[in-house]
Amino acid sequence: MPKFMDVHEGMYGVTPEALQQAHQADLDIQGDEGVDFQRAWADPESGKVWCVSEAPNADAIRRIHERAGHPATEVYPVPVEV
Amino acid sequence: MPKFMDVHEGMYGVTPEALQQAHQADLDIQGDEGVDFQRAWADPESGKVWCVSEAPNADAIRRIHERAGHPATEVYPVPVEV
Repeated sequence: MPKFMDVHEGMYGVTPEALQQAHQADLDIQGDEGVDFQRAWADPESGKVWCVSEAPNADAIRRIHERAGHPATEVYPVPVEV
Repeated sequence: MPKFMDVHEGMYGVTPEALQQAHQADLDIQGDEGVDFQRAWADPESGKVWCVSEAPNADAIRRIHERAGHPATEVYPVPVEV
């Protein structure tokens, strides 16, 4: 399944607990769209969050993040990785 | 050691071989600055590459990427992850 990197902006001050809660909200509904959210990293100071997932397509990721209450600013396919 | 996400722009058309070579160029000299580059993901279409590393500070990452021939556009600390 294709892999994606999505980026969120504006999550200033995000704590480990808040990121875990947001991630869990994705996990709770990701099956509806066949998405598999794998990892996420956050910088509380810049408010940026990056998520790596596998999904059928970018729109599936957008829909899950939007329903979970934290729409993605950008979603990129990442077919190349090391 | 602190973790970081750095972003490269303009790497249009990057192939798996090119990303592996670029990553290896980092690995070859990362010890000079105490950096540990762990993973990288690339979108050949947008030209963006994201790298996760552990490092003493952001400047150490900038110096290694610059010496390896692919300066980072942005480097963010990511103290929060899931």
